Amino acid sequence: MNRVYNFSAGPSMLPMPVLEKAASELVCYGTSGMSVMEMSHRSPDYEAIINDAEAMLRKLMNIPDNYKVLFLQGGASTQFAAVPMNLIGRTGKADYVVSGQFSGKAFKEAQKLGYDVKCAATTKDDNFDHVPALTKDMFRPDAAYVHVCYNNTIYGTKYPEIPDTGDIPLVADMSSCIISEPIDVSKFAVIYAGAQKNMAPAGMTLVIVRDDMLDYAEEKMPTMLEWKTMAENGSMYNTPPCYTIYIAKLVYEWLLSIGGLETMQKMNQEKAALLYDYLDSQDYYIAPVKKESRSMMNVTFVTGDAELDKKFASEAGKAGLKNLKGHRSVGGMRASIYNAMPRAGVEALIEFMKAFAAANPKK
Amino acid sequence: MNRVYNFSAGPSMLPMPVLEKAASELVCYGTSGMSVMEMSHRSPDYEAIINDAEAMLRKLMNIPDNYKVLFLQGGASTQFAAVPMNLIGRTGKADYVVSGQFSGKAFKEAQKLGYDVKCAATTKDDNFDHVPALTKDMFRPDAAYVHVCYNNTIYGTKYPEIPDTGDIPLVADMSSCIISEPIDVSKFAVIYAGAQKNMAPAGMTLVIVRDDMLDYAEEKMPTMLEWKTMAENGSMYNTPPCYTIYIAKLVYEWLLSIGGLETMQKMNQEKAALLYDYLDSQDYYIAPVKKESRSMMNVTFVTGDAELDKKFASEAGKAGLKNLKGHRSVGGMRASIYNAMPRAGVEALIEFMKAFAAANPKK
Repeated sequence: MNRVYNFSAGPSMLPMPVLEKAASELVCYGTSGMSVMEMSHRSPDYEAIINDAEAMLRKLMNIPDNYKVLFLQGGASTQFAAVPMNLIGRTGKADYVVSGQFSGKAFKEAQKLGYDVKCAATTKDDNFDHVPALTKDMFRPDAAYVHVCYNNTIYGTKYPEIPDTGDIPLVADMSSCIISEPIDVSKFAVIYAGAQKNMAPAGMTLVIVRDDMLDYAEEKMPTMLEWKTMAENGSMYNTPPCYTIYIAKLVYEWLLSIGGLETMQKMNQEKAALLYDYLDSQDYYIAPVKKESRSMMNVTFVTGDAELDKKFASEAGKAGLKNLKGHRSVGGMRASIYNAMPRAGVEALIEFMKAFAAANPKK
Repeated sequence: MNRVYNFSAGPSMLPMPVLEKAASELVCYGTSGMSVMEMSHRSPDYEAIINDAEAMLRKLMNIPDNYKVLFLQGGASTQFAAVPMNLIGRTGKADYVVSGQFSGKAFKEAQKLGYDVKCAATTKDDNFDHVPALTKDMFRPDAAYVHVCYNNTIYGTKYPEIPDTGDIPLVADMSSCIISEPIDVSKFAVIYAGAQKNMAPAGMTLVIVRDDMLDYAEEKMPTMLEWKTMAENGSMYNTPPCYTIYIAKLVYEWLLSIGGLETMQKMNQEKAALLYDYLDSQDYYIAPVKKESRSMMNVTFVTGDAELDKKFASEAGKAGLKNLKGHRSVGGMRASIYNAMPRAGVEALIEFMKAFAAANPKK
């Protein structure tokens, strides 16, 4: 077995202990006589798994008791519709911050559904090289919620602190930074995240929702998108994505075993600092993101020459550093260094960057 | 490892060769240097997997070229909303056949969404012990579609032949009978199915839709529920449930390797015949379903004594015959004998039934 360093933006690396444990019990889980893939979601064995997953996540993120934890399907893209359908009834309008492609998609989805939504701030004119500076007077005081994307996977930006929206409920897409560091959940009304970056394989969507946000759902909306229905049924209104939730449980267990999110944050900060410090120390590669908006998870850089960028991604791939090509909409390079990327992977990347720069002088 | 016979209605058994292959390549897939769980859905390795899955399913089911194959999320329950949202625009109304709990849920979901839907036939008054006899004059000629549930998991019933709806497009929920036997796809406008009975772990939903059904979607519906959007993006409008699709591919591969759906049908018919023949040969157990509506996948029976039923399920479980308890809404027993249930499992069940009857005479 020859494992590579996989810098994919998602789906992405999982911790080796998780993969090895999953492989060892794939055919037969404990004394159950079956695979977790085959278990009835109503069986005691499976109920223990999903209950443990929730309990571990609550411990890991220090989720207050007045929040529900939902394990759903459909990805963050489904939540782009579910958020207004569940919440806009509170006041009839909502404000969005557009800081990249996915927050733009969330805004457009709410528009498509015919809702009164406003883009309160955007950094589009700066090619999303930073997140907007937000103050609470930028939002309509009667907005049902303010929606932000907390970490922008494609551009490699992140809010340096939790935006202050005053009394307006804050809704955050945290797909690409969830459980990468401790966060004060009580500052948010709703947090949602696709699993496929830091939590599990693709196919599970986490929604953490404060109890008082459960009472505003549209009458005429798909039942499967109603958070309240899912909350009342413990995420089992229908069959949940059982196996993906089981892998998430193994990931939460691993995180708790290494010391929780404080330890993880320290490791992530160290990995990101290694890479950003190198980028700041030379002038072959350019890091386009403004320093105060830098993401700890997705590090973007370019050579300034599209041909060299292409060569870089290709040669890095051959050297076992996979998926460093930037998103097709922006080009350049992107190193996604999620929780499961070991420090050695980042070190190997920096060594490769140095060697590539030396071997490929710019004209 | 001590594998049990798992008669769960879903999630349910998977073929051993599939589980063993998945376990063997879980940590590292081929020469990719990573798990399938970690692969970018845009990577060549993963594209080969999803393309193979579709090609194998097309071969297995003999799906005509004018049908799209979609691998989605959200379960059949999400399709209960997606079906009317995608199709009712054709004429503005739709007819439903209510033959059990899930078809009833599909009907209610369309009502909840405010659509003009009519229950054209139901066997509710007979406690769903058979499927309605359908003739095309039972439907509104201008219905956008007729919706049926082809196999009723909870009650253990199935249509003996494809209902004739004349010129009205036929939409079928095939969650619990998909790929259990050859079926003439061209007789349907849309077939959909949750994966967790015959195809894969929970978390993937198959939709097979005829091209001319893609043009009637509502304007104001969640983008993620639009079949056309998913079709145009090869099921990758967002990140698909990659790993679950990979397991489905292994299942399709296994089915092709044993001789396809003709062989599978023969094996399924033999298993079902063993059990029904035994039920018909004695009078301790009662099979409540009318013979012409009997399901080949879900076999229901009762002792006629709720206490004995409870004892049966409990003692069978201890003997390694798991999940034989009927659905909580109907009681009794249910043996789900999907594709992956070996003949030996059915034989073991019959032996247990005989022994239990002998040891527990009725008062």
